[in-house]
Amino acid sequence: MDEGTTESELIDLLRSGSGTSPRLDVGIGDDAAVTLPGGATATSVDAVVDGVHFQTEWSPPEAVAHKALATALSDLAAMAAEPGEVYVTLGIPGGTADGYIEDLAAGFMAASDSFGAVLAGGDTVSSPVLFAAVTVVGHAVGAAEFVLRSGAAPDDLVAVTGELGGAAAGLWLLETDAESVEGLDPEARTALVERQLRPVPRLYAGRVLGRLGATAMIDVSDGLAQDLGHIADMSGVAITCDAGLVPAQAGVAAVETAAGRFPGDLPLAGGEDYELAVTLPEAEFEAARDALRALDLNLTPIGRVTQGDGLELTGESGSRDAPAGFDHLA
Amino acid sequence: MDEGTTESELIDLLRSGSGTSPRLDVGIGDDAAVTLPGGATATSVDAVVDGVHFQTEWSPPEAVAHKALATALSDLAAMAAEPGEVYVTLGIPGGTADGYIEDLAAGFMAASDSFGAVLAGGDTVSSPVLFAAVTVVGHAVGAAEFVLRSGAAPDDLVAVTGELGGAAAGLWLLETDAESVEGLDPEARTALVERQLRPVPRLYAGRVLGRLGATAMIDVSDGLAQDLGHIADMSGVAITCDAGLVPAQAGVAAVETAAGRFPGDLPLAGGEDYELAVTLPEAEFEAARDALRALDLNLTPIGRVTQGDGLELTGESGSRDAPAGFDHLA
Repeated sequence: MDEGTTESELIDLLRSGSGTSPRLDVGIGDDAAVTLPGGATATSVDAVVDGVHFQTEWSPPEAVAHKALATALSDLAAMAAEPGEVYVTLGIPGGTADGYIEDLAAGFMAASDSFGAVLAGGDTVSSPVLFAAVTVVGHAVGAAEFVLRSGAAPDDLVAVTGELGGAAAGLWLLETDAESVEGLDPEARTALVERQLRPVPRLYAGRVLGRLGATAMIDVSDGLAQDLGHIADMSGVAITCDAGLVPAQAGVAAVETAAGRFPGDLPLAGGEDYELAVTLPEAEFEAARDALRALDLNLTPIGRVTQGDGLELTGESGSRDAPAGFDHLA
Repeated sequence: MDEGTTESELIDLLRSGSGTSPRLDVGIGDDAAVTLPGGATATSVDAVVDGVHFQTEWSPPEAVAHKALATALSDLAAMAAEPGEVYVTLGIPGGTADGYIEDLAAGFMAASDSFGAVLAGGDTVSSPVLFAAVTVVGHAVGAAEFVLRSGAAPDDLVAVTGELGGAAAGLWLLETDAESVEGLDPEARTALVERQLRPVPRLYAGRVLGRLGATAMIDVSDGLAQDLGHIADMSGVAITCDAGLVPAQAGVAAVETAAGRFPGDLPLAGGEDYELAVTLPEAEFEAARDALRALDLNLTPIGRVTQGDGLELTGESGSRDAPAGFDHLA
């Protein structure tokens, strides 16, 4: 960076606010962060780019940091991992205001704290476009194994946490700046936009599901249909999903009508909701549902694992071809 | 990515070529990579951006990957860590040719192999500018501790591996496209440009120095003067460095003359050489030097740790103010 906050000022800033954890031995400031994992680790990388994954006009820096970290940690949730260390590399254009970078850094520290992770390292580089590349490391909880995409077995139930389609509906509301949508009340509207800007990774729910018999798990980032397809492919099984059972977030149907989409498209193909799709033996379902209910989170059965391959959608909207994928931010 | 190689094609490509290691339990393709560290880990993040850290006109994709990985691994070398897992996030502009991305991915796989690391995970995102964000994880070797920046003690010798200034001289040759430089033979010229485009992280040398008594270590990325300053600051000591003793790569003096720089500026302030600056008790020096000699790598004493703070440069070029830092790629 030629102007504004220098790298060492930023490092001082990050260090002053970086958390501590029993596993983090040396944090920001040396050549590398030193951790003492004590068991298996799960590592995932992701990046968000200005104008592609977020729009600075919609997203204050705190929300950019929140979403970048939430989407990365969502991969750990889908592994049933305990969140551990966070590493952030910021690409910073020359003219960026000091305050913006400080707010972004503060956003990563606050989001790490709120998700139970610790900001352990970071770097800044010059870049013509603002980006944040995020690495997250999660840990196996006690003797628990991580839950992979590859463990689904015939006869397992397929279920999904929470409600879907909200992130895509929220994006449509932001993009079209629609003043009023028929049948959409203000509270639901706010929740749809919040889902797009500040999704919540299901970290604790993922660990609960892992402990209660989940055989395979994935976070709903690309769109439910595509993500269930990944489980089917990786597990070498077929999945039948009743599209009519997929729970939609409040207000999604009204946005679908206003946007001229088929009913049920956004929950099936919208993506970016960061709920968890899970397979588990039917005998385990009730206990898992009850455990999530205590977290105020629904677990809804939407299909079944069978022998074969690929995803089959049934039900009213499933009877036509699967929606081709909503044009969400790539 | 709307065109060209899709993410899953790229993942297939990376998976087909990804290495294996006893520590890597689940590689590319699931929500996260699963590793079994077995001891302390050192993690470092970095990124390179097209037009800032590399120029596609100078650097074929294989060299971009090589340098991005080398500079990240150099941080692990400075910790005396054994290289472990590599994670790469590529930001890819829409119009990028399929072949380029494949060559870049192949470059990361080849470079990981050649440096003794394993490509364990990756992601691709759309971006208006090409970038590669790299995360590297290293491991403590047996019962050995990592070497931090903070362990330098008064009376320690200060030494540096190899020869410096070559990367900055190579950059000047690339930027000016100078046809002929007085006193610079073609072999030295090639080596200077190679140092800029394909630096070699001193991974093995770092571990040898760690085993043979290094008290503090840093890789020479910002410039020797600045990097020694980091050791002094983090260790709470002063460092006296005789600028006349700093070894220059062959041909650097000729480039300094042609570029109108003071003699000795590039080795002191050029940066990007990715050699190691190390402090160690004088009694350990000879054994360390002999061990590196077996690797065809010089270890040159250049100064002394004392009580106090900050860096003092002595000797002929040290007697004027420290050079302000060469304008290398930020």
